Amino acid sequence: MSGSSYGKLFSFTTWGESHGKAIGVCIDGCPAGIPLCEEDIQSYLDRRKPGQSRYTTKRAEDDAVEILSGVFEGRTTGTPISLVVFNKDQRSRDYSEIASYYRPGHADYCFDAKYGFRDYRGGGRSSGRETIGRVAAGAVAMKILHALGIEVFAYAEEIGGIRCETVDPSLRDTNPFYMPDANAAAAVQALAEKRMSECDSIGGIISCVVKHMPVGIGEPVFEKLDANLSRALFSIGAVKGVEIGDGFAAARSTGSENNDEFLPAEHTGEPLKKASNHAGGILGGMSDGSDIRIRAAVKPTPSIGKEQQTVTRDGDPISISIRGRHDPIIVPRAVVVVEAMTAVTLVDMLFAGMTARMDRICSFFGRSPEE
Amino acid sequence: MSGSSYGKLFSFTTWGESHGKAIGVCIDGCPAGIPLCEEDIQSYLDRRKPGQSRYTTKRAEDDAVEILSGVFEGRTTGTPISLVVFNKDQRSRDYSEIASYYRPGHADYCFDAKYGFRDYRGGGRSSGRETIGRVAAGAVAMKILHALGIEVFAYAEEIGGIRCETVDPSLRDTNPFYMPDANAAAAVQALAEKRMSECDSIGGIISCVVKHMPVGIGEPVFEKLDANLSRALFSIGAVKGVEIGDGFAAARSTGSENNDEFLPAEHTGEPLKKASNHAGGILGGMSDGSDIRIRAAVKPTPSIGKEQQTVTRDGDPISISIRGRHDPIIVPRAVVVVEAMTAVTLVDMLFAGMTARMDRICSFFGRSPEE
Amino acid sequence: MSGSSYGKLFSFTTWGESHGKAIGVCIDGCPAGIPLCEEDIQSYLDRRKPGQSRYTTKRAEDDAVEILSGVFEGRTTGTPISLVVFNKDQRSRDYSEIASYYRPGHADYCFDAKYGFRDYRGGGRSSGRETIGRVAAGAVAMKILHALGIEVFAYAEEIGGIRCETVDPSLRDTNPFYMPDANAAAAVQALAEKRMSECDSIGGIISCVVKHMPVGIGEPVFEKLDANLSRALFSIGAVKGVEIGDGFAAARSTGSENNDEFLPAEHTGEPLKKASNHAGGILGGMSDGSDIRIRAAVKPTPSIGKEQQTVTRDGDPISISIRGRHDPIIVPRAVVVVEAMTAVTLVDMLFAGMTARMDRICSFFGRSPEE
Amino acid sequence: MSGSSYGKLFSFTTWGESHGKAIGVCIDGCPAGIPLCEEDIQSYLDRRKPGQSRYTTKRAEDDAVEILSGVFEGRTTGTPISLVVFNKDQRSRDYSEIASYYRPGHADYCFDAKYGFRDYRGGGRSSGRETIGRVAAGAVAMKILHALGIEVFAYAEEIGGIRCETVDPSLRDTNPFYMPDANAAAAVQALAEKRMSECDSIGGIISCVVKHMPVGIGEPVFEKLDANLSRALFSIGAVKGVEIGDGFAAARSTGSENNDEFLPAEHTGEPLKKASNHAGGILGGMSDGSDIRIRAAVKPTPSIGKEQQTVTRDGDPISISIRGRHDPIIVPRAVVVVEAMTAVTLVDMLFAGMTARMDRICSFFGRSPEE
Repeated sequence: MSGSSYGKLFSFTTWGESHGKAIGVCIDGCPAGIPLCEEDIQSYLDRRKPGQSRYTTKRAEDDAVEILSGVFEGRTTGTPISLVVFNKDQRSRDYSEIASYYRPGHADYCFDAKYGFRDYRGGGRSSGRETIGRVAAGAVAMKILHALGIEVFAYAEEIGGIRCETVDPSLRDTNPFYMPDANAAAAVQALAEKRMSECDSIGGIISCVVKHMPVGIGEPVFEKLDANLSRALFSIGAVKGVEIGDGFAAARSTGSENNDEFLPAEHTGEPLKKASNHAGGILGGMSDGSDIRIRAAVKPTPSIGKEQQTVTRDGDPISISIRGRHDPIIVPRAVVVVEAMTAVTLVDMLFAGMTARMDRICSFFGRSPEE
Repeated sequence: MSGSSYGKLFSFTTWGESHGKAIGVCIDGCPAGIPLCEEDIQSYLDRRKPGQSRYTTKRAEDDAVEILSGVFEGRTTGTPISLVVFNKDQRSRDYSEIASYYRPGHADYCFDAKYGFRDYRGGGRSSGRETIGRVAAGAVAMKILHALGIEVFAYAEEIGGIRCETVDPSLRDTNPFYMPDANAAAAVQALAEKRMSECDSIGGIISCVVKHMPVGIGEPVFEKLDANLSRALFSIGAVKGVEIGDGFAAARSTGSENNDEFLPAEHTGEPLKKASNHAGGILGGMSDGSDIRIRAAVKPTPSIGKEQQTVTRDGDPISISIRGRHDPIIVPRAVVVVEAMTAVTLVDMLFAGMTARMDRICSFFGRSPEE
Repeated sequence: MSGSSYGKLFSFTTWGESHGKAIGVCIDGCPAGIPLCEEDIQSYLDRRKPGQSRYTTKRAEDDAVEILSGVFEGRTTGTPISLVVFNKDQRSRDYSEIASYYRPGHADYCFDAKYGFRDYRGGGRSSGRETIGRVAAGAVAMKILHALGIEVFAYAEEIGGIRCETVDPSLRDTNPFYMPDANAAAAVQALAEKRMSECDSIGGIISCVVKHMPVGIGEPVFEKLDANLSRALFSIGAVKGVEIGDGFAAARSTGSENNDEFLPAEHTGEPLKKASNHAGGILGGMSDGSDIRIRAAVKPTPSIGKEQQTVTRDGDPISISIRGRHDPIIVPRAVVVVEAMTAVTLVDMLFAGMTARMDRICSFFGRSPEE
Repeated sequence: MSGSSYGKLFSFTTWGESHGKAIGVCIDGCPAGIPLCEEDIQSYLDRRKPGQSRYTTKRAEDDAVEILSGVFEGRTTGTPISLVVFNKDQRSRDYSEIASYYRPGHADYCFDAKYGFRDYRGGGRSSGRETIGRVAAGAVAMKILHALGIEVFAYAEEIGGIRCETVDPSLRDTNPFYMPDANAAAAVQALAEKRMSECDSIGGIISCVVKHMPVGIGEPVFEKLDANLSRALFSIGAVKGVEIGDGFAAARSTGSENNDEFLPAEHTGEPLKKASNHAGGILGGMSDGSDIRIRAAVKPTPSIGKEQQTVTRDGDPISISIRGRHDPIIVPRAVVVVEAMTAVTLVDMLFAGMTARMDRICSFFGRSPEE
């Protein structure tokens, strides 16, 4: 089935393997009239590319994106937007050995069972490079959100058990971990050094905040905003958990503590404010006007140098030690992917919400609504 | 947009408000030849209906399901299956008052903003009764899974912070909380009494286990099995978090601890076993042959008798105390809903997986595969 | 697969067999705020029900529709609308004999091969009664179109080779054939009598006109307006051809004759007019502002009393003569079905068109568009 | 909305404008294990490219396709297949003038109304070059069909009113019109010369035959095989009518003439044969085992040198004469597009049919079916 496509109204299909010729995305349903150029997209891609620090994979790639269609005289035309990044640094030889065994924590065994063989080249579609297409699509979605005054901001909330105690957005991009807390980043640096020397890896939690979302976006009962956001985040490799608002902490709370009380309206026309935001900005599957808060748990990188026991394709035992260029921490590179997947989902849901009321549809088409 | 439909190949649309005439579901894409009768579905519905204990809502309803189409001589025909439950115990007067204010923790405000008005009757589509349609669809999906030897079992793993220390499936249905640990159930009973006397509510965590899933089910990169399961569970009202396997605990682990090592094959033709199952049975978004473990965090019931501050539709402050028949704990009634949503997702994904390999498609159509 | 669902944004699923308990439809994605009651739908259903003349099937059915959900205080709520018609006049015995052979021109053989058995009761889902669900959905779609000032009108343009020479809409409902030309209707009456005495049947062509469609509706390249309208009409049983505008006559024309020249604009803000309308109101798959003209060819009723040769389920030859209550002409009853399928398609496409331009999306959400 | 994507299980998105950098397609849902290389696709593209005769557009393009992903060691991997053709011969200056007026018979006016501006470069997405993506996707679909023993063959049945009296498939590619009748081709050549000297254009009818389709493919009631084939063909630019089997001739027939009688089975296990095939191989929306016959009416090329009256973007009258490189006959280049769209639809429907029966699903997953 067509598992590489996402979205109903603003949709896209990603393609390309990490060791194939190129990687890209085809976006369908992007409205016309949006200013768009390669630079708009490149800044997002740069945040995911490796080689940014000694803690992320050392592969020297440009990942320069090229717009092949859908833009004319600097604006989107409403036709499909094809974006491509040509693979430069492939080094096939790094991966040829792993064709013969199933790496623990990876999808090798699953792909083999599913397709009857495995494209062993660098993880194929489950490699981190697959996210290039998503991030590019997310960059275009961000243009739409910004035009609507909506902001999306993600950051590493916790790595290796070390949490950010404060959140200063301006600090996020000043350290290799994308943590908005300098102290936490320093502690993580020490921990990362330790784990790297042990040939091991660590995981973390990425938090994402959405501001100024209109109220009532989300389509009960199955196309709820939180349901779709969770699916979006879980589709990112290595994600093993998602929370909205208080998440699992809500399961241990009481109704009186967890309910967010609405505050008297200050100005008409603005969304209501709440005394608290345990709900994380989503109630009944729809945005409630407060900041949307969503969180993703990212497991440690499965490819480690430490020795592991596993089996070959024939089912025989084998000891392995995965060398090569692998991130000891996935979290930093995944932060922009979380933003991207959040952005594309918000846009799809905003579009879906436009047909909720007949009176607004009438206005849209220039007819007067009924009484 | 059409937010009340779920699934691509095995799909269904639920309809009906808790205080309307009836509630039902229309299932499309169910294969022909499956034995099906009302009893098959009723047993699932009975596990969600209220009045089962003093800890769940006191509403005397039969919730008797009726098959209106899609079954002939005791077997599904391949045509759409329409299932209906007629509402008997509506008591509109319980809810008429709440039309004037926005209940904290509920979707009232969101619905109002989205549609321009609110069907205040008993929560409309966000009432617990909406789950009747899903559970009925889940019951049909279970027939398909059982025919394929796949088992789905959900239970309350934790309520109000009290965890099950042991899991004995045979104990699940012996207490009103669907906890497979008698001690934990007893402790929860005490806690529930306490919270009820305080006019408050508690939440919990539901765990679901899937056994004997074929390897390789799930469609990377966006129709991953875990991504779709998470969306399925988040679509259930009151769910605020979802985990696969170790979930958020994986975020605090290391690669060497979190990786599940594959064990040497015992018998050919059977799925590989792993030394551990931190992954929860899903790797790279596909089933890996081990038990699938998924968990949902359920917030406390928002409707409580305790006094709360909120605002009226006009934005003026008001104190409220919600009386009427409300569950102090949502979790027990949601256990079967988790099973149902898991089941329908597994079926949709199993169907999607049938076109993964050309050789198997050739065999299906009775042609010999290519070399 | 889920073949009984139609539409992406305004979608619905039809269910029910002609000899089952009931027939209905579940509509998902209908906007809130539309006045709707049973009478709005009944008038459309009445135009398809049998027993209206001696030329259509003699089955005494009320086909009274009931709204089970989705409407509150006389207006749609935005939640799914479930509509049901309970089957009264089933007479199973009429059909039990045909279970043993494959009727020529019917789908018996196909169903048997597809599902492994055949629900022989009165044609099951391929019976004319299946259209009840579609027509009900179409009635709701018509409310949306009328609110937008769009009109849809279908009629029998030709029956048994006898064409309407003039088209006076007010005459359509004054004869059993729904022909807007009294002379043609009289000639058809004579022909129909003749064919009935021969135990044979005749076919015809249904024409449909859409007025006041906004310009630019349709989504190139695959969700074109004409492509979707053709699929909608071909989904009606017995349709074997569809034309837009001049249709097959265009294939025999020249560019200079076939092109519709645009006329100088009379008033700003109104759609351009054209000197001709060979295109049938659709260019490049989008509405061009002129009347949309679409035509469906309907084959003769396959169930005839005249003796035919066919085979039994075992492949042995058999002579049959189909008795029972069958329309000698399908066309009259199909006219409202053509209107209905056109209506639901137009609504889905209008909704789809709302996200074409970023500036209009900004306005919709109350943000000022970019320069 | 996402109008550039086609298909549910075997799906693809086409992108690219005729005067942009490149044109391509991204195919999602293609099964793994199919041998595929550029040559497999190039042969189909070559049949649509211009410059093949003096009767088709003189643009010297290679249209060399490149596979960027989804193939490994000569076989499809099951991951998305990205195919690209880089535009070489663009000559922007040919088209800059037409930005100021609306060409009759083209979609200029519709695009302007839809998007607020028009990408005037060579017709943008409504240019004939857009079909490159579809034909490439169709070439891949053909590999699947051939593996299943299914054949698809299209040809020009009629051009400018001149019909093929005989059909010899081996003659199709021996003349520039793809007519399988040498006499008809010669007559068309004379007619084409005449029309070209008049600066005019002609249209025609393309016929397509499908052999060896399994019985019962198609999903009633809305995903019928004929409904989807019609949508597929109508999505091709310039198509104004579609027929299945006898099409509009059936509307003028009688039941006794139009019904195809089934013949006694010769060999068990083979599809039943019929005494005639007025149905065109499809009954009740499903394949019936006979040859599927579908026909598309193609209007004359709208771009002609002959003088026409139209209006400018401001609504003022203007006389135009369209020069540049335009086909006087679209039909020949559209033949392979008809094959391609038929192929992709057949594959999607074949895949959809795999979940019709529970017993076959059980077998697929290696479980024994129920009694």
